[in-house]
Amino acid sequence: MKRIFMVTAASLMVILAACQSEPASIATPSGGSGASTGALPSDAAAVAQERGLTPDDIYAAVKTYTPSGKTDPFIMIASGGQSGQVLVIGVPSMRILKVIGVFTPESWQGYGFGGSGNKILAEGKINGKDVLWGDTHHPALSETDASYDGQFAFINDKANARVAVIDLRDFSTKQIVKNPNAINDHGGSFVTPNTEYVVEGPQYATPIGWKYAPLDQYKDQYRGLISFWSFDRTKGRIDTSKSFQIELPPYWQDLCDAGKKVSDGWVFCNSFNTELATGGVESGNPPFEAGTTKNDTDYLHIINWKKAEQVVKAGKVEQINGIAVIRLQTAIDEGLLFFSPEPKSPHGADVTPGGEFIVVGGKLDPHVTIYSFDKIQKAILAGGFSKDAYGVPVISLDKSMEAQVELGLGPLHTVYDDKGYAYTSLFLDSAVARWTLGGPYADKHPEKPWTLVQKLPVQYNIGHISAVEGDTATPGGQFVVALNKWSIDRFANIGPLMPQNFQLVDISKSGDQMKVLYDMPVGMAEPHYAQIIKAERLKPFQVYPQVGWDAETMAVDPKAITSEAQAHIERNGNKVEVFMSVIRSHYSPEQVKVKKGDHVIWHLTNLERTPDATHGFAISAYNINLSLEPGKTETVEFDADQAGTYTYYCTEFCSALHLEMIGYFLVEP
Amino acid sequence: MKRIFMVTAASLMVILAACQSEPASIATPSGGSGASTGALPSDAAAVAQERGLTPDDIYAAVKTYTPSGKTDPFIMIASGGQSGQVLVIGVPSMRILKVIGVFTPESWQGYGFGGSGNKILAEGKINGKDVLWGDTHHPALSETDASYDGQFAFINDKANARVAVIDLRDFSTKQIVKNPNAINDHGGSFVTPNTEYVVEGPQYATPIGWKYAPLDQYKDQYRGLISFWSFDRTKGRIDTSKSFQIELPPYWQDLCDAGKKVSDGWVFCNSFNTELATGGVESGNPPFEAGTTKNDTDYLHIINWKKAEQVVKAGKVEQINGIAVIRLQTAIDEGLLFFSPEPKSPHGADVTPGGEFIVVGGKLDPHVTIYSFDKIQKAILAGGFSKDAYGVPVISLDKSMEAQVELGLGPLHTVYDDKGYAYTSLFLDSAVARWTLGGPYADKHPEKPWTLVQKLPVQYNIGHISAVEGDTATPGGQFVVALNKWSIDRFANIGPLMPQNFQLVDISKSGDQMKVLYDMPVGMAEPHYAQIIKAERLKPFQVYPQVGWDAETMAVDPKAITSEAQAHIERNGNKVEVFMSVIRSHYSPEQVKVKKGDHVIWHLTNLERTPDATHGFAISAYNINLSLEPGKTETVEFDADQAGTYTYYCTEFCSALHLEMIGYFLVEP
Repeated sequence: MKRIFMVTAASLMVILAACQSEPASIATPSGGSGASTGALPSDAAAVAQERGLTPDDIYAAVKTYTPSGKTDPFIMIASGGQSGQVLVIGVPSMRILKVIGVFTPESWQGYGFGGSGNKILAEGKINGKDVLWGDTHHPALSETDASYDGQFAFINDKANARVAVIDLRDFSTKQIVKNPNAINDHGGSFVTPNTEYVVEGPQYATPIGWKYAPLDQYKDQYRGLISFWSFDRTKGRIDTSKSFQIELPPYWQDLCDAGKKVSDGWVFCNSFNTELATGGVESGNPPFEAGTTKNDTDYLHIINWKKAEQVVKAGKVEQINGIAVIRLQTAIDEGLLFFSPEPKSPHGADVTPGGEFIVVGGKLDPHVTIYSFDKIQKAILAGGFSKDAYGVPVISLDKSMEAQVELGLGPLHTVYDDKGYAYTSLFLDSAVARWTLGGPYADKHPEKPWTLVQKLPVQYNIGHISAVEGDTATPGGQFVVALNKWSIDRFANIGPLMPQNFQLVDISKSGDQMKVLYDMPVGMAEPHYAQIIKAERLKPFQVYPQVGWDAETMAVDPKAITSEAQAHIERNGNKVEVFMSVIRSHYSPEQVKVKKGDHVIWHLTNLERTPDATHGFAISAYNINLSLEPGKTETVEFDADQAGTYTYYCTEFCSALHLEMIGYFLVEP
Repeated sequence: MKRIFMVTAASLMVILAACQSEPASIATPSGGSGASTGALPSDAAAVAQERGLTPDDIYAAVKTYTPSGKTDPFIMIASGGQSGQVLVIGVPSMRILKVIGVFTPESWQGYGFGGSGNKILAEGKINGKDVLWGDTHHPALSETDASYDGQFAFINDKANARVAVIDLRDFSTKQIVKNPNAINDHGGSFVTPNTEYVVEGPQYATPIGWKYAPLDQYKDQYRGLISFWSFDRTKGRIDTSKSFQIELPPYWQDLCDAGKKVSDGWVFCNSFNTELATGGVESGNPPFEAGTTKNDTDYLHIINWKKAEQVVKAGKVEQINGIAVIRLQTAIDEGLLFFSPEPKSPHGADVTPGGEFIVVGGKLDPHVTIYSFDKIQKAILAGGFSKDAYGVPVISLDKSMEAQVELGLGPLHTVYDDKGYAYTSLFLDSAVARWTLGGPYADKHPEKPWTLVQKLPVQYNIGHISAVEGDTATPGGQFVVALNKWSIDRFANIGPLMPQNFQLVDISKSGDQMKVLYDMPVGMAEPHYAQIIKAERLKPFQVYPQVGWDAETMAVDPKAITSEAQAHIERNGNKVEVFMSVIRSHYSPEQVKVKKGDHVIWHLTNLERTPDATHGFAISAYNINLSLEPGKTETVEFDADQAGTYTYYCTEFCSALHLEMIGYFLVEP
């Protein structure tokens, strides 16, 4: 069993600088089979020739093309990065079906422009101030028995340490939770195998509650904080009163994954600044990128959340800003936290389908290091640990490691298929590595265990990687998607800000036959991770179940009107309450008259029952736009502080007389 | 020459109600040729069979599939509707390359979260208040001699009557102009053939300046207002001081198009509420949808903008809220404005490539009505007009009309190709109609002139239609895109809010051989119109031309630092000015310390010169995120009103050590 680490930081920096100035050169895909059985329709053959398509291209085209009326069998849920949103993408057609508004207002879907979305966005305020964007990184679909159940999705906001809940009955955001004790995160969202908890792992250490402390107090004051947000599935909401946090050393924890099956009850996180570097290149210190990469290893964090639950129940916590926090010393004393060395500033802690192994991508080490949960358990029982500077027990690598596989430059993140293969992204090599698992997976594939099988070039510089149900107990195989960070020359030039490039990869054949099928530009987001679920698991509404449906409470609003006959206006002093019906192709009422300064409460109900019969509602100049799907009711409340003659109208093209669907909103001075 | 109008409003309403409850039934595409020459690679044949692809599907797949590294020959610029943005889409691959932030803040591209975008968005304030969304409808690419020149794009905001300028060197918004005299629009943006003016046509009448006036004063007080925004190409900005407006009757003008070639100097707009309906269904009046559709005809507006320029020069204007306005009576007296009847609540006034004809879609009449510019000119010279209720001269239909072609139910909008064909969207029939132009186009196609050639079913209910350069003097042919409004069953179910459906249509063959090639869901926007330009006309930057480039002024900022050695912090009382360099993979400085209450001015320069070497910059909790493309400089200014320990970090994945690219922002209490 080889263990190879980079020799010196200096030579490492030289290698990285060389790698970063040019992307890895592109290997052209291997030529296709060339054999000709079956017929290409004559006009298609002419087109293929005229367009210069190779046999591989034709294969890829027929593998991904989705005819009108046929739907994608898989749905990818991808983070939007600093767009603050979540993308919904059909696979294998690689078409964006929806961008869900989460942390950033989005007016097409009426999120944050007067309707119930305003209330949800306000849940994300920080010390009373709006923060109307987010940096979403890792979506987590809800799981039952470690497989996706298609009910909810969760997503984190790295920039501000917040977590959101998305309901997959209508693919809309229902809740935002602001972490009161952390101000950034990264290792989230991830769920425990029955979605008991939504895990939010920390990243850049700060004092708890991001209180001010000068950097020379880094070792004593700065901490990491991993959060276990308790999820109430019946309510569809995180319950902060049942949630807890564990204090960690300031090691810049990175990615986390929950154990499952044999490792159910545990969570694993990697880290990359055990050096405790605090930067300051301007003062002659090594920059962060050098200071944090000095050591040969950092620490894999091994956390027993099932036991932590008991510790919380026993009251061995400190209540900090309303959350139960297990202090670091308690975590150590109660045997909740263990470390094991991991090379080298790693990225990605990814648990295999049966929970037996945890795979860590070396990032600055060319290996993946595979840890055995069984060995870790044995080591914990045996005891006799060394300790880190904070007193956390350290399980030596020879006691925890199962294997290492040398893959190439920059291994980051690993997912799995149903044939015992693992797929790791190699950022610097700009490639996807397929390699074989060992142990109980050895019989699933023809190759030897713990062996690199193929390195497929991708364009360019892949970050995360996603496989069909590939981080669950029941991976689906068939496809993997490379979430490439640089697109460079892949797409027509549209200016200095280039899209990301998702590449769909065919993994349906064993051995070294992976191939890139399709380039998908992502030009409104920077996805970091994505999960791919079988579409059949999803059971969304086609229309809201009843007329008068409140999408925030996900129930009927008893005060909503349900017919045009009920439309009316109530006046009470300077309060004007409008009850408006919405149906093709008119509003009722069509004339709303108020006086300047009136406080207006405007309720609307879309009375339609036909799928796709969505109406919009916008009021000129008042920053109001709602999206009203069939059955939905919304309420917008505002002061009529601008006198004048305004129009409200339907913003979502609904009928032949859509342009005629308007009303006058008169504000008398 | 037939002229057929719908008989009664009542029977019309019955027909419309029936049409709207079910979409038009789908005709399945005709079977393919079946002939087999040329070879389908064996594995491709197996996949095609397994996936149930027809010969037509295979043709479509090889016609649209774009292999990695090959780029789209055409670029579609589409409005985003009530997303407030503009979409950039590659054709024929039908992939979104970018969503440009225009009227709505967008954090992925750093638009509206601290950088120069904030200043541009603030130009759109209405009476001092932020309106941070828009309803974009009709993009207009800049033109030279009536062909696209690839330099600028313009877009309107229907909801608030604003126009934006997008610079195609970096596909970013540079200016927003708020129309001070109108509060909604629709017939915009359109450009005159050398982009002398960006035209913004009105829609729902209000008093000028949207002053308050009760609806019983509709006839006397309410008006339409068409705006001619003067464009200074050298500065790349609209110059409101050289712009003018023309007052129109309150007829709800709808779509406009500029004359070109033989009709250069004129603009044509249709309208749809000459009935002067004011709604009030709640009070027993006919709803707007009935009141506005009562009459058999409305008025095509024929406007001489070249002559209007002279009228403005001669000072025969009223200055209203800073804009020169030609009052309605002056427009009549000076011979700037003429009407001609158009059936029936029409939509779409679309000028043919040589400028000879104006095609109006009947909407509630099954014909397109073709007006002859030559006939209109002759009628104007001959005189002897009747007048409308406002005294505007009316050219009778028999004097202005060249032809009518019966196409089907719900003709809306027409574009053109290079073979003398016209393509009209039929909303209610859910089809694209191909028909033949006459006059100088008669020889270009094999069929008789003014004849319907093919109706191609689309899915579903097409609104606008777009053709390659199809609204210019030099259409490119090859493709048309149907901008369908309802998708219903075309895509996997992702909840009640369904995407729109763009369908790419192959028009490369003459006769009745159009076919639908590709369904493209649009799930973050509701495009209304789009233009398709040949990619070779676009000359965007790959990186900004020099380090220290200010993307707002599109020039070097002389105060921007251009090297890491120049990075520093200046303190002056409670003002802290940071000059920060940004390059892989660190910022300098990496530690910024201020006191609570300090006023912070933070300049950043991306020193990279490599294409795609973009960095982000976010400050946790402060609602700040910037996108820094190679060479770009940005400045963000704020008060450090929250004490604590914050991090700033790179939000755009830039390198292997991207996660290490951070700094600490310490705000001492």
